[in-house]
Amino acid sequence: MTDIRYDVLGIGNAIVDVLARADDDFLAKQNMNKGGMALIDEPRAQAIYDAMGPAVEASGGSAANTIVGVASFGGRAAFVGKVKADQLGQAFTHDIRAAGVAFDTAPASGGPSTACCYVLVTPDGERTMNTYLGAAQGLHPNDIDEKQIASASITYLEGYLWDPPKAKEAFLKAAKVAHDAGRKVALTLSDSFCVGRYRDEFLNLIRTGIVDIVFANESELKSLYESPDFDTALAKLRTDAKLAVVTRSEKGCVVVEGLKTEAVPAAPIEKLVDATGAGDLFAAGFLVGHARGLGHRAAAQLGALAAAEVIQHLGARPAVSLKDLAQQQGLLK
Amino acid sequence: MTDIRYDVLGIGNAIVDVLARADDDFLAKQNMNKGGMALIDEPRAQAIYDAMGPAVEASGGSAANTIVGVASFGGRAAFVGKVKADQLGQAFTHDIRAAGVAFDTAPASGGPSTACCYVLVTPDGERTMNTYLGAAQGLHPNDIDEKQIASASITYLEGYLWDPPKAKEAFLKAAKVAHDAGRKVALTLSDSFCVGRYRDEFLNLIRTGIVDIVFANESELKSLYESPDFDTALAKLRTDAKLAVVTRSEKGCVVVEGLKTEAVPAAPIEKLVDATGAGDLFAAGFLVGHARGLGHRAAAQLGALAAAEVIQHLGARPAVSLKDLAQQQGLLK
Repeated sequence: MTDIRYDVLGIGNAIVDVLARADDDFLAKQNMNKGGMALIDEPRAQAIYDAMGPAVEASGGSAANTIVGVASFGGRAAFVGKVKADQLGQAFTHDIRAAGVAFDTAPASGGPSTACCYVLVTPDGERTMNTYLGAAQGLHPNDIDEKQIASASITYLEGYLWDPPKAKEAFLKAAKVAHDAGRKVALTLSDSFCVGRYRDEFLNLIRTGIVDIVFANESELKSLYESPDFDTALAKLRTDAKLAVVTRSEKGCVVVEGLKTEAVPAAPIEKLVDATGAGDLFAAGFLVGHARGLGHRAAAQLGALAAAEVIQHLGARPAVSLKDLAQQQGLLK
Repeated sequence: MTDIRYDVLGIGNAIVDVLARADDDFLAKQNMNKGGMALIDEPRAQAIYDAMGPAVEASGGSAANTIVGVASFGGRAAFVGKVKADQLGQAFTHDIRAAGVAFDTAPASGGPSTACCYVLVTPDGERTMNTYLGAAQGLHPNDIDEKQIASASITYLEGYLWDPPKAKEAFLKAAKVAHDAGRKVALTLSDSFCVGRYRDEFLNLIRTGIVDIVFANESELKSLYESPDFDTALAKLRTDAKLAVVTRSEKGCVVVEGLKTEAVPAAPIEKLVDATGAGDLFAAGFLVGHARGLGHRAAAQLGALAAAEVIQHLGARPAVSLKDLAQQQGLLK
């Protein structure tokens, strides 16, 4: 059996965020769905960029943010995702490695540029995302290193991987390798519109046990079961999933495993500045706790702590050491 | 006579900042001069980037930051500087245009990449800069549009322009065009080490009246006159310069014009987060006030307000409308 080298290995779209402030009028004029993630092509990306205000660039990507969070908690972390060998790809690569994450996926030498997400942050702190997948579309099963997957306690996959053509195959290959090695597989449903696109496939992953741990927020859960009622949808998820974590923004989260339920409140914040990365960082805390054998409550508290940190500043990655923060709060030794 | 189309036109190195937090140990290990700006070549840039932590990219450049500040105050603003047509050059171009600044300098299609400044921000909020000039070195007198210069009330030049080979000629050409059109020329001394490199030339610019308004901070002033005593140096500047503005960080600033002196306190801040851009934004406020005919005191108050805004967040450009801020404080109608 392969030794465990990583607490969590994430596979996702490797994206650089282009963050700017915008008001609700801008979203309306641009026909953007507030709070959601829309896939955009290159002409639309150019049109949005031309219309939006001054921006800052910061590495992002849902699973990548989570994995950086895991590393920030002191967890051993690896990431698999595809950039192009361009300036933004170099920035993505630098940032994730500088955060202490192993990242060795070969960059594309040609083809479309590194994926960008145009993130519009409204005065209420909500973020609205427009993703140009670019080079991230090139993720291929060949990018999966079986030995590396087998060496990770948990392989964490983002639902967004269903969007690029071959990434789904990479996802399924990784899940099989992980299970064959006796490891766990976790999935985030990513976004309610993403769930809308791939509902049946996601349900199949959960019901057939390809996925051991499911992360969802309230709207993704409702979309998954096409139910407007939270409790109805949660009851179904409880039946379908081995272990599920449902985040509910300021209402905290619920962890369900069979008949067991653990509700954990959100961590207090001073001011919501930018919600980008809230779910990603929640997953980071829960995963690092779970990989280290903490109970659901303690793991969820780490998640709540990380989510609270990331929404109090612009950008989707922690600005301080989450390990230090957790130790200060007595949540980690 | 050409009509006035711009309150302030700036000429400077077009730079994208790569900002990361670092501790004093990192600066020491990297032999960096805390608080200063060092010019670096490509191998050194790579070595610093490899060693530094996760970063964010944000458009910068001293004069460019000033000009964005002018636009944020509602001033009519233009910028001249050289990027390459690469991803960082596109980001620089987008950001400055999205801020409302006219920016039409043709990008380089080949040669070195867009200039980068690796900015290390220490826990005390001080910033230490390492600039790879790249494409900015290509600024050439041909990039100066005489009609545009003649249409600006003030042409603002950064001392850093003495570093690239041909930019100095562009600087002198612009200064002559501005004066021939009856306009004013302003210069920032940029950095004490920059003053050390070009002391005699800067003194000559000031003494011969090629420059009408000089901006300096305390250490630049002392370097200019090679005097450790502030008052001695200021007395000399008073004799040499038509109008000079000397900034003194938390001690505020002093405006001197012949025998007249106006000392203006710094604006209050809650917490110094990142000093990057403090001098640049001070200049923005003063210039926009001066161009609109405000007195030195009122102009310096606008400068102090803008500097206080920019040092309370990461990055060198304003995060809010400076016009709104100035109106709230009763400094602008």
